[in-house]
Amino acid sequence: MYSTLPIRVYYEDTDAGGVVFYANYLKFFERGRTEWLRQLGVNQTELAAREDRIFVVKGLDIRYKRPARLDDLLSIQSKVTRVGHASIDFHQVATLNGEPLCESSIQICCVDARSLRPAALPDNLKTLLNQLQD
Amino acid sequence: MYSTLPIRVYYEDTDAGGVVFYANYLKFFERGRTEWLRQLGVNQTELAAREDRIFVVKGLDIRYKRPARLDDLLSIQSKVTRVGHASIDFHQVATLNGEPLCESSIQICCVDARSLRPAALPDNLKTLLNQLQD
Amino acid sequence: MYSTLPIRVYYEDTDAGGVVFYANYLKFFERGRTEWLRQLGVNQTELAAREDRIFVVKGLDIRYKRPARLDDLLSIQSKVTRVGHASIDFHQVATLNGEPLCESSIQICCVDARSLRPAALPDNLKTLLNQLQD
Amino acid sequence: MYSTLPIRVYYEDTDAGGVVFYANYLKFFERGRTEWLRQLGVNQTELAAREDRIFVVKGLDIRYKRPARLDDLLSIQSKVTRVGHASIDFHQVATLNGEPLCESSIQICCVDARSLRPAALPDNLKTLLNQLQD
Repeated sequence: MYSTLPIRVYYEDTDAGGVVFYANYLKFFERGRTEWLRQLGVNQTELAAREDRIFVVKGLDIRYKRPARLDDLLSIQSKVTRVGHASIDFHQVATLNGEPLCESSIQICCVDARSLRPAALPDNLKTLLNQLQD
Repeated sequence: MYSTLPIRVYYEDTDAGGVVFYANYLKFFERGRTEWLRQLGVNQTELAAREDRIFVVKGLDIRYKRPARLDDLLSIQSKVTRVGHASIDFHQVATLNGEPLCESSIQICCVDARSLRPAALPDNLKTLLNQLQD
Repeated sequence: MYSTLPIRVYYEDTDAGGVVFYANYLKFFERGRTEWLRQLGVNQTELAAREDRIFVVKGLDIRYKRPARLDDLLSIQSKVTRVGHASIDFHQVATLNGEPLCESSIQICCVDARSLRPAALPDNLKTLLNQLQD
Repeated sequence: MYSTLPIRVYYEDTDAGGVVFYANYLKFFERGRTEWLRQLGVNQTELAAREDRIFVVKGLDIRYKRPARLDDLLSIQSKVTRVGHASIDFHQVATLNGEPLCESSIQICCVDARSLRPAALPDNLKTLLNQLQD
């Protein structure tokens, strides 16, 4: 099941080609993952402060199919595809009027905020993720 | 009367100082002006396509009082302070829980999309702006 | 053979995690490809104006190994791995003191600036690329 | 006397209007101030780590005269106009082929990295600044 975040395209997102600059979809997808976590009750600022855990991106691939333009109202769809001991994999799609513009598979790692070494996902998040997948 | 736009602070907006990077408030204010125009029925993409008019920023001053941080839910308040033949002046404030974080006075000019020379505001927008100020 | 572009990390590139924001490596890599083209005598603005051709990114994958931080002086290494009729594939690496921080494989497509449909690479560029690969 | 930093305009800097997005000049000016400090032997990362001091922008005004476009090679000119106990004022101009595109007056404050309260400029920097002004 995909979680959905609406995102409006502003001047800041576009480039001289008249379309959304290719790096900016990664900003949109990060917003999508953050709101997905917030819906589950996870606030990343508190997670960092209380449990010394932060999420970092390990890798991703992204395919661009159609460009988005100024004033477009996009929909960012986010779905968890795998939960590991210290990692979460996402599939994310940016759509416009139901048509996919670009899509991405992204691997996230939970790390200790100081050492930046992999650290187990917080227990309450892991429980929630397992329930979601049932 | 201020028009209000809620804006969430994401990682993309912050810098290594742990706060919102100073240039990014100009992005937030541009979003605020765009949504203010949209509420008045003005879509900038259509304006460019149909009437060959675009809005450009002529100048601004901005004062920073308090920093915003990751996950903060800001409110961008926008008010027109002056309407000219080919220009609109705004006062805009970013607030958090009612407290101002930074505020700006911004001068916008309406220009011909090709020549970039000043061009009269579209009539319907001017009529609306005059009604708002009554 | 890799072409190299030095890039300094400024506040604008970092985020509240104290490291370079993951989307910003795509900016660095785009700068690297642009300077690589410029070295070959190709100016993208002229290409768009004279031949109505622009380059768009079709897809990419990227792996993040180590974070970059404020004031780091990165080296962006770019190499062409394949030249097609209307496409160029790149391999790009961001390094710090010789150590790779992240690397990416990127597929670029040459398109008509109006229709956005694939269009043959300009002849002079193709000739240059074939010479490079000999 | 102005210190000068060359800056190339890339796709990331432009918007759908075909020109440099207005907020991005603040990025260029920040780079200019950082390199100005570096020339004086001041590295902001070390300053934060060793003396717990960071620089924050208190306010600025900026006037936009002519737009910059993709591939333009700008020159960022930076000059100190006033040195206070805990503050430095700058005048900065972005030029293209000697013509000013936009200019700004910016007030910087030196603050304690934890409390964010004003803190005296580091002694060695103050000495250098006074020598420059003689």
